[in-house]
Amino acid sequence: MSYDLNQVVEQVVKTVLSTESGLTLRQAEALAAAVETRAKQMGMKVVVAVCDEGGNPLLLHRQEGAFIASCDIAQNKAYTSVALQMPTKDLASLAAPGGSLYGIQFTNNGKIVIFGGGVPLIRNGKIVGGFGVSGGTAKQDTELGDYAKQFFAEELL
Amino acid sequence: MSYDLNQVVEQVVKTVLSTESGLTLRQAEALAAAVETRAKQMGMKVVVAVCDEGGNPLLLHRQEGAFIASCDIAQNKAYTSVALQMPTKDLASLAAPGGSLYGIQFTNNGKIVIFGGGVPLIRNGKIVGGFGVSGGTAKQDTELGDYAKQFFAEELL
Amino acid sequence: MSYDLNQVVEQVVKTVLSTESGLTLRQAEALAAAVETRAKQMGMKVVVAVCDEGGNPLLLHRQEGAFIASCDIAQNKAYTSVALQMPTKDLASLAAPGGSLYGIQFTNNGKIVIFGGGVPLIRNGKIVGGFGVSGGTAKQDTELGDYAKQFFAEELL
Amino acid sequence: MSYDLNQVVEQVVKTVLSTESGLTLRQAEALAAAVETRAKQMGMKVVVAVCDEGGNPLLLHRQEGAFIASCDIAQNKAYTSVALQMPTKDLASLAAPGGSLYGIQFTNNGKIVIFGGGVPLIRNGKIVGGFGVSGGTAKQDTELGDYAKQFFAEELL
Repeated sequence: MSYDLNQVVEQVVKTVLSTESGLTLRQAEALAAAVETRAKQMGMKVVVAVCDEGGNPLLLHRQEGAFIASCDIAQNKAYTSVALQMPTKDLASLAAPGGSLYGIQFTNNGKIVIFGGGVPLIRNGKIVGGFGVSGGTAKQDTELGDYAKQFFAEELL
Repeated sequence: MSYDLNQVVEQVVKTVLSTESGLTLRQAEALAAAVETRAKQMGMKVVVAVCDEGGNPLLLHRQEGAFIASCDIAQNKAYTSVALQMPTKDLASLAAPGGSLYGIQFTNNGKIVIFGGGVPLIRNGKIVGGFGVSGGTAKQDTELGDYAKQFFAEELL
Repeated sequence: MSYDLNQVVEQVVKTVLSTESGLTLRQAEALAAAVETRAKQMGMKVVVAVCDEGGNPLLLHRQEGAFIASCDIAQNKAYTSVALQMPTKDLASLAAPGGSLYGIQFTNNGKIVIFGGGVPLIRNGKIVGGFGVSGGTAKQDTELGDYAKQFFAEELL
Repeated sequence: MSYDLNQVVEQVVKTVLSTESGLTLRQAEALAAAVETRAKQMGMKVVVAVCDEGGNPLLLHRQEGAFIASCDIAQNKAYTSVALQMPTKDLASLAAPGGSLYGIQFTNNGKIVIFGGGVPLIRNGKIVGGFGVSGGTAKQDTELGDYAKQFFAEELL
């Protein structure tokens, strides 16, 4: 059996271009569900947020009893992880007085969050979205953020 | 010479995925330059803005003497055309009292602009960015927006 | 007596360039004092504001008993008259539903004011600043704005 | 040949006053292009911004792949360098806890940036605009800001 190379290439290009390589809402929901389950196991009530690669919201879930303030924070963690292309936990030290990014927390209309719980979601080496969780201590949120990153890498690529 | 189909497909997929199919800064600059030239021919002083498919800024140019207020308006026209997936001129009547979208101009932290001059930039049937121009009358801005859309379709695909 | 032309030109250029052709605080105070006196004669309590050609504040005076809300409004009127290069009274009809600028009042972070009382201050054909007054009816504020424009043209060029 | 001194003076004054001594969009573009080229050489992806002497935007360019958050930061660095009349790198220590300007980063609606990359653009001893760059480490941004200042002084006066 033989193939015409040009036809093959054309077909594949079409297929790939028509593929939405970004996050889908279903994927965001699966990620949220996994983190929400884990949060319950940890005795936490959290807000989880997922944004796309442009930093625009895809999903927000607030568990009953979670802090109202966490809505803002979770969304901003997701945004920050995309906008600065790094986990928010990395910003804690960088943005401290004396750190090389001290002051960044006062820019971007207050949308930069500098404690853990926000992670960029990476597919094929490219940031396709951001995840943020808020509701616990910085340590707990950071742990949940790391869990989200791992779950995404293992289950949702 | 023969090809292994799987290798071909894999290679093409990689190539396509690594291709940044979105707007580049150079394309935004070419679009801005074309509209700026046209604006001068029309005796106008304008601000032009280009954003990416996430509504995030790519370019802003303010011609000497253009309204300071136009910076905000041009950027928001670009944003609006992406955020609502339509030219801003379509919003003028829709957002008027009695229109089906009346009130939308008060949402989104004031980033929705409801008069002409903002157009989505479309490539392969997908919105890849937004363009906004401000500086003239609504009629002039709308005309320049249409020109930008046409120039993009003809020169920058 | 004779002059070396180059020396003359050089001297004049230096003189002109060293001249701050923009508004001074003293001029802003003189303008404010004139309008405040007039406001008292009209039985009004007003806030007056003057900004420079970049829309940045130069002066704010609130008469005892004037509306607190007028501080924002007067400053924004001054800003608007510079940012859109026209008296704010012209915007009332342009920004009404059906007008060519309908919707402009929702842009620029709410800094666009569309009723009378703001006027650009013009010197040698160039906008050097903006004046805004707030405290009375739209008709009264408009009248005071017109008075400020006239006073500036006659006394402060 | 003889000249009437008054006529000469009048003519020169008119000429000078009609000269727009501020930054032009073309100059801003030349400055941006130089810094963008340098950024590429340094392996960086940046956002550059130029504002006029009133702190109002003249230009914004975001290179592909640069942080979304950098749009805001670059513009605010340009604004800060004009608004506080100093390079933003000088603010890092001044605004740290214990510094003489500690707290300034919380004022001005979050538009004050306190790490390097923003420089005032000076012509004839007068600030005619501001430049801001964001995208690298504070050290890299500072280096690019210094480069912009030098390029402006050598090429764009």
